[in-house]
Amino acid sequence: MPSPIQIFLDRHNLDGFLLVGDSICDADMYYLTHFLAGDRFAALAKEKTTLLVSSMEMGRAEKESVADKCLSTSQYKIREKLKSSENWEEAYAGVLADFLRDHGILRLGVPFRFPAGLYQHLIQDFVVTILESPVSRSREVKTEEEQNAIADTQRACERAMRQAILLIARSEPRGELLYRDDMPLTSEKVRSAIDVSLLEDGCETIDTIVAGGLQAADPHARGTGPLAANAPIVIDIFPRSKSSRYFADMTRTVIKGEAPIEVKEIYEAVCLAQSEGLLAVRAGVCGKEVHSRVSEVFRAQGYPETEGQGFTHSTGHGVGLDVHEKPSLSEVGEALEVNCVVTVEPGLYYPDIGGVRMEDMVVVKKNGSLNLTHFERKLVL
Amino acid sequence: MPSPIQIFLDRHNLDGFLLVGDSICDADMYYLTHFLAGDRFAALAKEKTTLLVSSMEMGRAEKESVADKCLSTSQYKIREKLKSSENWEEAYAGVLADFLRDHGILRLGVPFRFPAGLYQHLIQDFVVTILESPVSRSREVKTEEEQNAIADTQRACERAMRQAILLIARSEPRGELLYRDDMPLTSEKVRSAIDVSLLEDGCETIDTIVAGGLQAADPHARGTGPLAANAPIVIDIFPRSKSSRYFADMTRTVIKGEAPIEVKEIYEAVCLAQSEGLLAVRAGVCGKEVHSRVSEVFRAQGYPETEGQGFTHSTGHGVGLDVHEKPSLSEVGEALEVNCVVTVEPGLYYPDIGGVRMEDMVVVKKNGSLNLTHFERKLVL
Repeated sequence: MPSPIQIFLDRHNLDGFLLVGDSICDADMYYLTHFLAGDRFAALAKEKTTLLVSSMEMGRAEKESVADKCLSTSQYKIREKLKSSENWEEAYAGVLADFLRDHGILRLGVPFRFPAGLYQHLIQDFVVTILESPVSRSREVKTEEEQNAIADTQRACERAMRQAILLIARSEPRGELLYRDDMPLTSEKVRSAIDVSLLEDGCETIDTIVAGGLQAADPHARGTGPLAANAPIVIDIFPRSKSSRYFADMTRTVIKGEAPIEVKEIYEAVCLAQSEGLLAVRAGVCGKEVHSRVSEVFRAQGYPETEGQGFTHSTGHGVGLDVHEKPSLSEVGEALEVNCVVTVEPGLYYPDIGGVRMEDMVVVKKNGSLNLTHFERKLVL
Repeated sequence: MPSPIQIFLDRHNLDGFLLVGDSICDADMYYLTHFLAGDRFAALAKEKTTLLVSSMEMGRAEKESVADKCLSTSQYKIREKLKSSENWEEAYAGVLADFLRDHGILRLGVPFRFPAGLYQHLIQDFVVTILESPVSRSREVKTEEEQNAIADTQRACERAMRQAILLIARSEPRGELLYRDDMPLTSEKVRSAIDVSLLEDGCETIDTIVAGGLQAADPHARGTGPLAANAPIVIDIFPRSKSSRYFADMTRTVIKGEAPIEVKEIYEAVCLAQSEGLLAVRAGVCGKEVHSRVSEVFRAQGYPETEGQGFTHSTGHGVGLDVHEKPSLSEVGEALEVNCVVTVEPGLYYPDIGGVRMEDMVVVKKNGSLNLTHFERKLVL
């Protein structure tokens, strides 16, 4: 049986699909090759996958990658080409062209994100078509191994969330702020407890949101300085396992002290919207249907969408080698497939109150979903 | 006086230069905007810089970025365009086109790495030229503030190196392996001590090399499992400050136990090559001249370049918002400018012996260089 890549190539009448980038930033490169490198390399996907790396990376590429074959840019005379052109992009494009010809490529597919500088060179010698990457498409549906990797990262995420919430629970509201050991408890301190916990679990995190008070009214604000008492604190943790490279993602919102009545109401609305969103997830349903169900629940509870406040973002996104990947649970979300992993994370944001968000991560199944998040929803600590 | 960007635009007869990407992976985006975002956004550089972000990011962009103006994709009707095209790339290209027209752009410059999918759309309405990014070029020369940020990260890097070396120094050679508390000391344990130290200093690291024995013969091998006694261990640490986002980079090679005579000789050769390389660095000298001086020192000491072993990599690279950036100290390295920050890191690698590398990081000055690395070179612990 031909591979999914081969089926894709046949359908689009292509001889191969070429990816160029580094596999730290480009998850497609990592998915296809399992070769982790911060410097740019190339991967040609045909029935078999061939890597093109610098000669210095050859040893590691042969040991670590799952590619069928590894070749080096030295074999395609990168040094000689550099000397004659004195321009790295041109020399590298020359190497790529020789490499492609060597593999019998005439009609080439490249992804949307392919570097325009190389595209411009390659179209001189090849018929190049820019298409949605078949690798990105494959990444949407997770194998059992991938689901387990994501679940493992989620366990680490929950242990970190536990540390954060314990720290806030053990703090003391004095006036408008939270205190611990006679010092104001800050977003930074909570974030640091999260970081230490994740490190112990072999995870890294680019960013963690610990945003309290009015800062939380901006869903992407990282949070800084002393945390407010009697006001919602949004904690959004999205770590990546250093070994598997798979992400997890979860959010909880908590209050230490007294919860104002309007915050309680918002919290309940968010919980209900999330529950309804989770119920709506199953294979065959479109991401946009889940999103419109969540929006509908908010509207029915008296939280209509208004410019810049209320439910200002989409309902969720896929999680895998990228923290935000397809499928999307938004206005343009397509049909969910069995074994996609997605978040369901409604939130409400008001500049004069702050924000509340609640996020779980689930595996899409035939008749529903499997929630990978095992953590209580509790507002007041 | 016109800005460097304006001078660049005038020279190339362009109305503006457009960057599209996320500023976690694309350091040019961060440098230009100081807006840190994992999701894609656009930045148009003219005399002033304008950001184009999703409506959800507007609040944060206005607060955190140094751009002169922030606009949202909603203002350019992304939702309506998505509904009519049902294709994200096409809709986003439509938004970009409206945004560019709104800013009087006809002749547009984009960098080599600009996404080909968007390039293909934009050339239908604009005269698009692909050029080396003027932002990358500006990043090569560091301001005093940037030099201080790099030096701060280097201090954290040295504290982490100290922890790693202490751990190895306090281990005990038994037979072929190193032991600590009756357990083999592993690459993983040393790496974990490095990670904890970096975390305490507000730094993160994608990867750290702790490679002992024959693993170190591959300059990019990460290192895994028990560390060998009486054999060189290469420790290469390249952290990034989470607050400033600037990297540092250093390498030391150590042995616990007895150093074989051939390793001692290799170590001395690397030290001499590094010293000579460091002496060769000053403004106006080409990176390739420094590299060829280092290669020459190796040859003179009886370590000629041979296929796949010996001095298999370049002498160094720029360090800043990327751990590998321009200028390059390699066969194609151009003239070094005052206040570039570069590494000088010769190494020798042999499959039957292992590897030795020594790396310092310096600021290029008019008559020499300022070494930012304050750490002894000592082989046997």
